[in-house]
Amino acid sequence: MTEARPMTDPSVVATGFDLLADAIETQAAPVIRVDWQPPMPGTEDDLATVAGDPRRAAANAEAVRRMLDVQAHLVDVVPARESLGLGAGDFLHAGPPISWDRASGPMRGALMGACALEGLVDDPERAAPMLAGGARATGTEAAGAQATGTQITLDPCHHHGAVGPMAGVVSASMWMWVLEDPATGRRTYCSLNEGLGKVLRYGAYSSAVLDRLRWMSSTLGPLLQRAVRAAGPVDITAILTQMLHMGDEGHNRNRSGTLMLLRDLGPALVAAGSGDDVAEAIRFIGGNDHFFLNLAMPACKLALDAARDVPGSTMVVAMARNGTDFGIQVSGTGDRWYTGPAQVPEGLYLGDYGPDDANPDIGDSAITETAGLGGFSMAAAPAIVRFVGGTVPDALATSRRMYEITLAESPRWSIPALEFRGVPTGIDVSLVCRTGILPQINTGMAGRVAGVGQVGAGLVTPPAEIFPAALAALADTVP
Amino acid sequence: MTEARPMTDPSVVATGFDLLADAIETQAAPVIRVDWQPPMPGTEDDLATVAGDPRRAAANAEAVRRMLDVQAHLVDVVPARESLGLGAGDFLHAGPPISWDRASGPMRGALMGACALEGLVDDPERAAPMLAGGARATGTEAAGAQATGTQITLDPCHHHGAVGPMAGVVSASMWMWVLEDPATGRRTYCSLNEGLGKVLRYGAYSSAVLDRLRWMSSTLGPLLQRAVRAAGPVDITAILTQMLHMGDEGHNRNRSGTLMLLRDLGPALVAAGSGDDVAEAIRFIGGNDHFFLNLAMPACKLALDAARDVPGSTMVVAMARNGTDFGIQVSGTGDRWYTGPAQVPEGLYLGDYGPDDANPDIGDSAITETAGLGGFSMAAAPAIVRFVGGTVPDALATSRRMYEITLAESPRWSIPALEFRGVPTGIDVSLVCRTGILPQINTGMAGRVAGVGQVGAGLVTPPAEIFPAALAALADTVP
Repeated sequence: MTEARPMTDPSVVATGFDLLADAIETQAAPVIRVDWQPPMPGTEDDLATVAGDPRRAAANAEAVRRMLDVQAHLVDVVPARESLGLGAGDFLHAGPPISWDRASGPMRGALMGACALEGLVDDPERAAPMLAGGARATGTEAAGAQATGTQITLDPCHHHGAVGPMAGVVSASMWMWVLEDPATGRRTYCSLNEGLGKVLRYGAYSSAVLDRLRWMSSTLGPLLQRAVRAAGPVDITAILTQMLHMGDEGHNRNRSGTLMLLRDLGPALVAAGSGDDVAEAIRFIGGNDHFFLNLAMPACKLALDAARDVPGSTMVVAMARNGTDFGIQVSGTGDRWYTGPAQVPEGLYLGDYGPDDANPDIGDSAITETAGLGGFSMAAAPAIVRFVGGTVPDALATSRRMYEITLAESPRWSIPALEFRGVPTGIDVSLVCRTGILPQINTGMAGRVAGVGQVGAGLVTPPAEIFPAALAALADTVP
Repeated sequence: MTEARPMTDPSVVATGFDLLADAIETQAAPVIRVDWQPPMPGTEDDLATVAGDPRRAAANAEAVRRMLDVQAHLVDVVPARESLGLGAGDFLHAGPPISWDRASGPMRGALMGACALEGLVDDPERAAPMLAGGARATGTEAAGAQATGTQITLDPCHHHGAVGPMAGVVSASMWMWVLEDPATGRRTYCSLNEGLGKVLRYGAYSSAVLDRLRWMSSTLGPLLQRAVRAAGPVDITAILTQMLHMGDEGHNRNRSGTLMLLRDLGPALVAAGSGDDVAEAIRFIGGNDHFFLNLAMPACKLALDAARDVPGSTMVVAMARNGTDFGIQVSGTGDRWYTGPAQVPEGLYLGDYGPDDANPDIGDSAITETAGLGGFSMAAAPAIVRFVGGTVPDALATSRRMYEITLAESPRWSIPALEFRGVPTGIDVSLVCRTGILPQINTGMAGRVAGVGQVGAGLVTPPAEIFPAALAALADTVP
């Protein structure tokens, strides 16, 4: 029991700037400091409107429940030609819709490489004029395609149930992981991870890059298809649960996830092909600590897609970047994108590369943060600071800060270092606007010049203005 | 700059009990608290003698340097018959020397099972009279062996360059990992891990246990031999470096280590035998998160053996338990064991088992703590508290406490959650005696009745009195 304080003593609660609190403490009077900052400028009215939306609490609870109910099972591996119905000139890409003329270097490089992979050109460099000749966003026919008689279309992965890391370019001959929620039969898709460095998704398109992709299509994909069909389904959501206890956060650390996949498919892989091919496949997967990223991403999309289209929900269901724009989609406003300029990450560079070499933020991989992994779960993966920069206390503080802008703590994914607290999940547009705290994303960095490949890895946030824009649209829906 | 304090103000440093410090603080006077406790009773004179040993500092630096210089490479897999020269009646066991009459239930159970495995008896139950008939410690011939004409000997693993988890029983037909320090050619050995639950090392000896061991000898061992010879050497020390960044501490969490071994041997395993055998081997290894323990242990022994026999060094080079006695060996006193009664761990129990079912501490696996892993590195593996009990803050505090009794921080093995601080390594007998802090070990718990198997996992310390005994012997060596 504490003694009752005489009414004559001052009793002060101070918010915001420290000036008042400091002055009071120098008088040796008690003061309670509240960590508070004003909402994002201009959002006051919309925050009040959305806060008063009678649907909001139930809608967000429903969106969270649907997201958390999803179990992502790996059920198949199938070429994009079959699984997504892509023709030779159809290309998917990361992020919100974009046309060639606004596309960044790595996005252009990846598209050029994909044109060569699909046989539309012999030399990737010759694809640029074709793509520049007319390819516009979202299904527009490219004039340049007349050269081969093939129509060229560009469309976001997200519009086809897919996600792609970095440039995220998907073309017909690439093999796709197929993930399924057994309760609903809904599916999502992602290509196979190529490794780090000079790879297509970072905008590289040399002959070594294309040769690797051809081996992945001719050998790795079919082997994995036979192994998954024999050994599957593989519970990807459950592997993610284990990963968070094994130093991975599911975005830029996927080491233990990759190894658990190899463990689970290993016995079936042995029977899936010739000894030499199987050994080479195991060597390729085991040699790429990021191989599992392309399973973590569609698992997160599968969960978040379930939370789409709940009227009144302020929950973010996708964050994605095309290398030029950063876009989000929100449950309560359908498929509309809110976009702003992608930022250049801060972090660590490979070799002699530096900040001038880095392209702005790119890739659908921020779907992991949208679900509570990646930057939101960095406290589970302190060793990641050696890859993306910062310190271990930063990593812990980042995860703690993300609880301020999320609707729930995952009952399934937990962080040992935070005493098994569930990861912060379900970004709330109104909490972001009210606190000014932006979602923290960790990411690879592509070279800004087409053909370069990876130059580093680091930390980045979305452009702040897309959250007030989404909030305004949510306010417009309030009955 | 701080202002000079007038000489009239009190300036107090308080050690030990809080009474004085508390009283001073209620007067609002500054007080510095020093966490101090008296040395272990009766060690004052020996501490003074050893502290005055002119050889001590250089000897401990030399022991630490030798330990840290060792790189443990997996170079082969060979039956104990060949690698250790064991005959059908020769059995190695964990811990310091022990005779059958003083052996605990799980030690007896494992020896009985091993007798059946080697064909000395048809039924393990019939081995007890044979072993009881005369098997005494350290190479003594058993009278009972006359029944088969086979001499029975019992000898510690540690006396043969080997280590064994739990009962640690090694017999001629068991296949052994062979680890080598490439700089010196020195070697250590350990058997292959059987998994958890009903297994020989926990004292179980049912036909299922023996069938598994026979499959390991007929199929798994030869496959691993071919794979290691084709793919090796495998750098076990380097895998341990990675494990500490992946939630393992190398004693009771070896998940990521097991998966990295599977990754490194996988391609060669594919070519090492029939598809069915290889698939079964991958399934067996991948299904046992503790498989790598039997590589972590001999890697630690290889490092610590290099630190043996440095005159004047107070560093512990082995901690081992036989289920009855807990023993340590110290660099400065050769192969002498200092032993006391093994304690019963406190922890978590499987199924309906409870404290009454648990055998006292058993196994050579405390070699991991001796090298700075296991209990000493629990801060790297917070999820381990779900297996051995306690809380995450306990795990962090345990690692921090172990720096108080160790000579060095490993430059190779680091703990991300402690901002990549090197693991505490090289237990100093004099620091243990001076602080009263005992080494913290995490461990599996065997059922105390022969045949039961594992009943849980938990935390345990050595009996305190063995450290003053070792200190006294070290004092006797001071010139």
